Amino acid sequence: MVKINIIGTGNVATHLLKAFAGKAETVSVNPHTMEGFDSSADFSIIAVSDNAIREVADAIPPTDGIIAHTSGTTPADILVFKGIRTGVFYPLQTFSKNLELDYSHIPFFVESNDPSTQDSLAGLASKISDSVTIADSDKRKALHVASVFACNFANHMWTIADKILHDNGMDFEVLRPLLSETLRKTQSIPPAAAQTGPAARNDSKTIDSHMEFLGNDENIAKLYSMITSSIINTSKHP
Amino acid sequence: MVKINIIGTGNVATHLLKAFAGKAETVSVNPHTMEGFDSSADFSIIAVSDNAIREVADAIPPTDGIIAHTSGTTPADILVFKGIRTGVFYPLQTFSKNLELDYSHIPFFVESNDPSTQDSLAGLASKISDSVTIADSDKRKALHVASVFACNFANHMWTIADKILHDNGMDFEVLRPLLSETLRKTQSIPPAAAQTGPAARNDSKTIDSHMEFLGNDENIAKLYSMITSSIINTSKHP
Repeated sequence: MVKINIIGTGNVATHLLKAFAGKAETVSVNPHTMEGFDSSADFSIIAVSDNAIREVADAIPPTDGIIAHTSGTTPADILVFKGIRTGVFYPLQTFSKNLELDYSHIPFFVESNDPSTQDSLAGLASKISDSVTIADSDKRKALHVASVFACNFANHMWTIADKILHDNGMDFEVLRPLLSETLRKTQSIPPAAAQTGPAARNDSKTIDSHMEFLGNDENIAKLYSMITSSIINTSKHP
Repeated sequence: MVKINIIGTGNVATHLLKAFAGKAETVSVNPHTMEGFDSSADFSIIAVSDNAIREVADAIPPTDGIIAHTSGTTPADILVFKGIRTGVFYPLQTFSKNLELDYSHIPFFVESNDPSTQDSLAGLASKISDSVTIADSDKRKALHVASVFACNFANHMWTIADKILHDNGMDFEVLRPLLSETLRKTQSIPPAAAQTGPAARNDSKTIDSHMEFLGNDENIAKLYSMITSSIINTSKHP
């Protein structure tokens, strides 16, 4: 059985340990002390925040195994100082500690300057996922930026909606059917075509009324105004 | 059987006609000519854009039935010049012409200055929906603004993600598992708690790298910067 050091204690590390259960022999490694590190492992996966990758890689004891990080935005060559058997093992997903996931649907993007290492990383990913792609660092960065908009920023829109409802004595629950339908729509038509609402139809009366309503909350009003303009411009030049 | 004039030709009118099929006798009325208008109908529902409500209401022939509009943001009293049996019949949903909907899950918000009219509008909504609430114009406006963030603005984030992927030779399809999981998360934890990503962990290295990546597209870069700041501020003061 393949042996893997999973270095990290965050959401990605936790989920990789779960994903490989029964499919590989995994060791959970503390990124600060390297406690538990197995030098004979076939892979050492660094699943820590981008800022810490370099430092953690530096602390990894000598190993003949492949070393890879899980970051969307960090270039592959940050690990080259550890040898040529290094690369990237990037899962495109949002990980929360206490939510179960079907790992087979998570797209993995792998990269290495060394072709045989790249093959090995792809093989490792295919043990848990049906979707494995070779992607260079530029493509991976585009994927990460796109996923920040699609996931993190969309979620922030829901946080703001939640705040507006709460401030007016209502609950986020009331939006559930709308949210489900919003997502269902993007599954059958491209998001640009699915765009509805006052901005999409350039309904200045409603937009003005909403801006007046948001007058007391400068941050939210600014976001409303800017995203509305962006939708109007996108609708004009699709 | 209850008789309803559905005045309008847009998405909301189309879906109301479908929703009431078999549950009421409906007439589709052209908002420009009032062709088809039945003066003996129990309800006349004005389903046109906010800007046009007043003008369409003006053109409605004399009727003893209740007149209501379907707008989230327009006050109930815009129709009072047509008599006291007037009000609001607001479905909180995103309607696209060619997508089928389960109407029973759509929350309806009704309002009238006249209590018996309000009861009648609530009764009409309960013919098609399991979720009917009385909400005054302020509450309804808060709902509408919240739904613009939750639905329209979230969808715009997906439009931008789609553009970034397309510009880099990739397809929106790759984000589907991430989108499904993003929505599934909000169904078990509040959106503020579900927030992940570089902004939520104030990962300045990744944020700077993304801003550099977006450098050529001023509009998208500005949105990235502003929404990132908003997430950082929200995470500081939850």
